[in-house]
Amino acid sequence: MEGNFTYCNPTKLYFGRGAVRFLGGELPKYGKNVVLIYGGGSIKKNGIYDSVVKILHEGGKNVAEIAGVMPNPTVEKLYEGVKIARAHKADLLLAVGGGSVCDYAKALSVSVHCKEDPWEKYYLRFEEPTCETLPVGCVLTMAGTGSEMNAGAVITNPAQKLKIGHVFADEKIMPKFSVLDPVYTLTLPHYQMAAGIYDIFNHICEQYFSGEDDNTSDYLAEGLMRSLLHSSRIANKDMQNYEARSNIMWTATWALNTLISRGKSTDWMVHMIGQAVGAHTDATHGMTLSAVSLAYYRHVMPYALPKFRRFAVQVWGVDPAGKTDAQVAEEGLSAMEAWMREMGLVLHIAELGVREEMIDGIAESTLLLEGGYHTPDKNEVKAILKESM
Amino acid sequence: MEGNFTYCNPTKLYFGRGAVRFLGGELPKYGKNVVLIYGGGSIKKNGIYDSVVKILHEGGKNVAEIAGVMPNPTVEKLYEGVKIARAHKADLLLAVGGGSVCDYAKALSVSVHCKEDPWEKYYLRFEEPTCETLPVGCVLTMAGTGSEMNAGAVITNPAQKLKIGHVFADEKIMPKFSVLDPVYTLTLPHYQMAAGIYDIFNHICEQYFSGEDDNTSDYLAEGLMRSLLHSSRIANKDMQNYEARSNIMWTATWALNTLISRGKSTDWMVHMIGQAVGAHTDATHGMTLSAVSLAYYRHVMPYALPKFRRFAVQVWGVDPAGKTDAQVAEEGLSAMEAWMREMGLVLHIAELGVREEMIDGIAESTLLLEGGYHTPDKNEVKAILKESM
Repeated sequence: MEGNFTYCNPTKLYFGRGAVRFLGGELPKYGKNVVLIYGGGSIKKNGIYDSVVKILHEGGKNVAEIAGVMPNPTVEKLYEGVKIARAHKADLLLAVGGGSVCDYAKALSVSVHCKEDPWEKYYLRFEEPTCETLPVGCVLTMAGTGSEMNAGAVITNPAQKLKIGHVFADEKIMPKFSVLDPVYTLTLPHYQMAAGIYDIFNHICEQYFSGEDDNTSDYLAEGLMRSLLHSSRIANKDMQNYEARSNIMWTATWALNTLISRGKSTDWMVHMIGQAVGAHTDATHGMTLSAVSLAYYRHVMPYALPKFRRFAVQVWGVDPAGKTDAQVAEEGLSAMEAWMREMGLVLHIAELGVREEMIDGIAESTLLLEGGYHTPDKNEVKAILKESM
Repeated sequence: MEGNFTYCNPTKLYFGRGAVRFLGGELPKYGKNVVLIYGGGSIKKNGIYDSVVKILHEGGKNVAEIAGVMPNPTVEKLYEGVKIARAHKADLLLAVGGGSVCDYAKALSVSVHCKEDPWEKYYLRFEEPTCETLPVGCVLTMAGTGSEMNAGAVITNPAQKLKIGHVFADEKIMPKFSVLDPVYTLTLPHYQMAAGIYDIFNHICEQYFSGEDDNTSDYLAEGLMRSLLHSSRIANKDMQNYEARSNIMWTATWALNTLISRGKSTDWMVHMIGQAVGAHTDATHGMTLSAVSLAYYRHVMPYALPKFRRFAVQVWGVDPAGKTDAQVAEEGLSAMEAWMREMGLVLHIAELGVREEMIDGIAESTLLLEGGYHTPDKNEVKAILKESM
């Protein structure tokens, strides 16, 4: 394990059927004023909202609401939430929803008492909070982002066409507790389930496909990928399969809580390109990733043939006998493509609303990171986008 | 992922060369009175003691010491430590050593303010603490037990010939922080390094070889085992290889911090039998496990042929083509045996001081657990011990 690092994830996870019953036991640790944060309102149709509100009232909490947190939470929504949370003198922010809602709650937690403009401070200057921050709890209804156990928060500024993630440094920004009931994820439409699954898979790839090969993190990453492929194939045909969906939910958490990036430089370029597509189209996050992945990985493969060969053999079961490294590596990416088609993932950014004339703008707003095997320049990003049309 | 579970590991891990420099930053969180706990004194020869004491003094701490914590910490040593910690009005217990010292510190943390006899309360009745408990920090010098990030503490009562582990339920019993500098582990003799490696490997097996097959925990377990085999083979020939030793240290932590037991019933019979051997012989923990493992696993294999087949293929690289499940499974255990010999592990309990006439007594004091594929009765335990002679 190269380098020096810390690892600290204090989030308490409650996993399994009916796990929301543990929410009541967490509440006494916080003050009376709770801000309940959610998305479009599906939780009002599936009973989750009612369960949570009942528990909050039984716990003697005063509840204010921030509804309508959209899938790519915007900076305007953040400002709106800051007003609500300040007026309510919030003691606890409770996110009930998917990764967007949980991310939003964390962005809010560092913004409520922030005297500066949070977009500029946290998302343009990438500074850490110096103000008081609020505790966050999460009742997760969608598996994919890992937000429930990390300190990341992605916010979109549609006016600037920027979608930026800040992984806050202090573990206090991580949710204090998260309720993970796989049953809550079973009502998702197939499109969202598949997008979440690909988000998980790509999170793992973003950490795996970077230098310092062969350390413990790589082996853990391979384990998570293999578990995900196993479960995703079952879930793809049988969305209500609890065993498969629960394993997917657990895998999602561990794919992006910093464990498998320990000792790794990490890539994140698929996310940078995908987020840029997302900022221009408002498309579903997981699908922005799937649509650009194959072109990206085929582009960087020559810079890391041994690792792509290993990926092919260990994750995709490619038989390397009698083949060159390049052949094995290509077979691995072909196997990944076949799985992506099987899962119904979007493989063309045109389907997400990208038109040729948007490519330059998308490439311009793509942050170029240096942790992967090869950092593309803007021209390479444009080529990858063109190939992804 | 079957069942309901919680996961909460708040320990902050500082990993890498020179990681002890982070100790100073932790100290202000605790009161002035620190009890420094260590073993035989090797830390006074390799500079670690001096580094730590310097940091404690720079931090303005009053330091009392509990030296001489033996490899299988005894209940008498625990009582001695309680007196010292009480007299010192300890605010923080700082373990500097291997798993024995860290375990001991945790046992002490729940005993200092305990009004009852801690051996009876925690180790015979398995009750949880109701008294105030003290925070524990750890500077780890040996990789193997995972004690640095879990709530377990094994104590031996030589008079009663009992060696019992209690995994405390509350995550507050886990160390608040642990310093993991792989360089600290490089001075270990080969015997201790190999014993630690086998302890890690068997920890993983104890969780892997139980029902609920094929969940995320199984895949993570396989990743950890494969990483460990890779690194152990390097370290076996080149003990100073930092990359290999650092991966072993990181793997040890993740092998026994509850992650890979989520959704698993877990076995632990190799540890029960090995600990009983240890209570009668005071032998090195990892060697008590290696000496009884092959007989145990060959005994339970028929009850879980598919899992042992998977183990053979996924962990040992056995080619299953044209073979029955039983053949593949046996080949896997043979491959494990070959690796154990390569590592110089003890494979006979007679070498640890067991004589035939002790077998009945050892079997009598073996706790029989029900989480594995098959719970042996006392006669089966005797048979396993006889076969392990």
